[in-house]
Amino acid sequence: MRHEEDIRIVTLTTDFGHQDPYVAVVKGVILSGFPSATIVDINHEIPPFNILAGSWSLKMSLSYFPSGAVHIAVVDPQVGSSQRRIALQLEDSIILAPDNGLITAFISRAKKAFVLDKSEFFRTSVSSTFHARDVFAPVAAQLLCGVALEVLATEIDKQSLAKIDGLEPTTGAGCIEGAVVYIDRYGNLITNISADTKSKVKAISVGGKVLALASGSYDTISDGDAQVVTGSHGYLEIAMKEASAQDFLKVKNGEKVSVETV
Amino acid sequence: MRHEEDIRIVTLTTDFGHQDPYVAVVKGVILSGFPSATIVDINHEIPPFNILAGSWSLKMSLSYFPSGAVHIAVVDPQVGSSQRRIALQLEDSIILAPDNGLITAFISRAKKAFVLDKSEFFRTSVSSTFHARDVFAPVAAQLLCGVALEVLATEIDKQSLAKIDGLEPTTGAGCIEGAVVYIDRYGNLITNISADTKSKVKAISVGGKVLALASGSYDTISDGDAQVVTGSHGYLEIAMKEASAQDFLKVKNGEKVSVETV
Amino acid sequence: MRHEEDIRIVTLTTDFGHQDPYVAVVKGVILSGFPSATIVDINHEIPPFNILAGSWSLKMSLSYFPSGAVHIAVVDPQVGSSQRRIALQLEDSIILAPDNGLITAFISRAKKAFVLDKSEFFRTSVSSTFHARDVFAPVAAQLLCGVALEVLATEIDKQSLAKIDGLEPTTGAGCIEGAVVYIDRYGNLITNISADTKSKVKAISVGGKVLALASGSYDTISDGDAQVVTGSHGYLEIAMKEASAQDFLKVKNGEKVSVETV
Repeated sequence: MRHEEDIRIVTLTTDFGHQDPYVAVVKGVILSGFPSATIVDINHEIPPFNILAGSWSLKMSLSYFPSGAVHIAVVDPQVGSSQRRIALQLEDSIILAPDNGLITAFISRAKKAFVLDKSEFFRTSVSSTFHARDVFAPVAAQLLCGVALEVLATEIDKQSLAKIDGLEPTTGAGCIEGAVVYIDRYGNLITNISADTKSKVKAISVGGKVLALASGSYDTISDGDAQVVTGSHGYLEIAMKEASAQDFLKVKNGEKVSVETV
Repeated sequence: MRHEEDIRIVTLTTDFGHQDPYVAVVKGVILSGFPSATIVDINHEIPPFNILAGSWSLKMSLSYFPSGAVHIAVVDPQVGSSQRRIALQLEDSIILAPDNGLITAFISRAKKAFVLDKSEFFRTSVSSTFHARDVFAPVAAQLLCGVALEVLATEIDKQSLAKIDGLEPTTGAGCIEGAVVYIDRYGNLITNISADTKSKVKAISVGGKVLALASGSYDTISDGDAQVVTGSHGYLEIAMKEASAQDFLKVKNGEKVSVETV
Repeated sequence: MRHEEDIRIVTLTTDFGHQDPYVAVVKGVILSGFPSATIVDINHEIPPFNILAGSWSLKMSLSYFPSGAVHIAVVDPQVGSSQRRIALQLEDSIILAPDNGLITAFISRAKKAFVLDKSEFFRTSVSSTFHARDVFAPVAAQLLCGVALEVLATEIDKQSLAKIDGLEPTTGAGCIEGAVVYIDRYGNLITNISADTKSKVKAISVGGKVLALASGSYDTISDGDAQVVTGSHGYLEIAMKEASAQDFLKVKNGEKVSVETV
């Protein structure tokens, strides 16, 4: 049996979708550089160019992967511009991404930040439109081979990295102003408001409608009504019992969620 | 080369879809517990909460996997209720699932059944809404590590497991009453009527329309008509040549299929 | 760590979609024959029965995979007819496919061609509708095990293989007549006209509209207009900045693209 330390995991989070061969091409380049890589698809259905949704998808998933994983994240409307390609060194993993705020949630806990500026580690010919294939995949393969980030990239001040707004709610006196940050397949509306606040909630409203707190999980929600539960990732979630809260409330991603607190 | 006995395969069948990071989180937990796992996606597009479709997807696929595989199956509208999480020990593989009838097709051939009731083998904090991540994935990783099901779970009487109807047709004198149990991407209508009955069929009808038997495969179906062929899994299948029988006949999953036999 | 030469990669390109267990069944058969296979999905969303789109997807992706890979390609409206199942031996990889033109782009560079006619290497019972499972998967597993193609199949003249039209543009005096051959998730229209011709383009038009050449990547395209860029695979591509050229121009796959050259 292979030793645990020999296992090398790469994850992929993109807005490439599943209908084209783009994701597979990235995998081909990684496997060409490091044939025994274990490659895991996290999400390829980020709405095209939606950096906030990509951000939240990363926030919900990366911590579940083993130490040593290399995470490639690409939602990149500005590909081919002068925007930097960066690497973030976390406690026990590395994220490769464009410098457009996609990895905002991880900057504060990052140990070091790097810019990927050494073209000798890229594919020989770098296109202006497909950096996942030409930059991130070959660099990831080098990392799996054991080459240090310090060799592959140049350290930069992590405070120089681009950030996006909207990941954190605003807390005031007696109120929290949050937002729907992710809508999943079931039409559950995931908010950016921590479930820890649940005990302090007096009232919660979205799109002009005041919602009740469910006593437990989805099965405790009243039939035909949208209510608030503790989502599996530790945030308040607006859901229905075997139905779509999105369809019922007709709200979109980004919609404001207001909480009145005791 | 790794020895065959060192290979550990986990399959995943869910209604989680491909647009969210939920499937990836389950994979992350499995790989954290057993980094060299080979994880295969069977189906994540089971229509949400549709236990019958999930059941048939499992029935069509599990037997093709190698001995020793661990199969996680989650279509679970009642997640977080008092419903049990179970394990089914088959001749050469194990299924982990909620106790809601999803694994009905496998109960008769199961050697043993277990309830997953030992929280020391779960994730430290078990959410009420994501048992695939918090219960099934860590238990699967333990099984891959070689821990026996008897250690991880408590044996129960397999007759106590929940079952669903609709997987088997009803056979009468001169007739079989079956149903469309699965509709695939091509609009082929897969029935629960064994292809072994084909030689005894006098007439077959669905949605008020009597269908002809095609002489061979899809290419022998008359242009513009829906006819009956022997499907690849051994059941009668209603199909068209390069077109969708679902669109043509306008029938839904669950629609009755009546066969008059000699 | 496993040696590179021990790694065995199989890729899958099909029109099976993601909603059914068909792809997983093929993987189960491969893993049953060769448990340590690394299986990579290239594309399962080829539009059903669309051999041209499948062809272009293969052309865009196969070259990125490591030496020794076995590529299974199945878009097969004629499955179960007398059509041959073939294998193409390339310089450093092998393609298994139906003989319907799907692998047209690879024939000229193939070293040898074979017909898969030895049923002792197939699954015991070969259905008339699922050759990916019953023929290609078991043969691929044998190849991974190291069995030579000469043993598994019978060599044929590669000139006898079926071919499709439309992969190559027609070049005349002062003009090139090409086509849109692939439309991706972003609505980018990929043409079959090499980007090498870009410097010679006087005018390019599609669907009656004359398009400008963008100076660089997507971010250099004028807002609200569709323009021509060098696509990441080396072909001219019609795109918009953060919008869908397909929706804007209302053209379909196969649409003619006319280039006036200097």
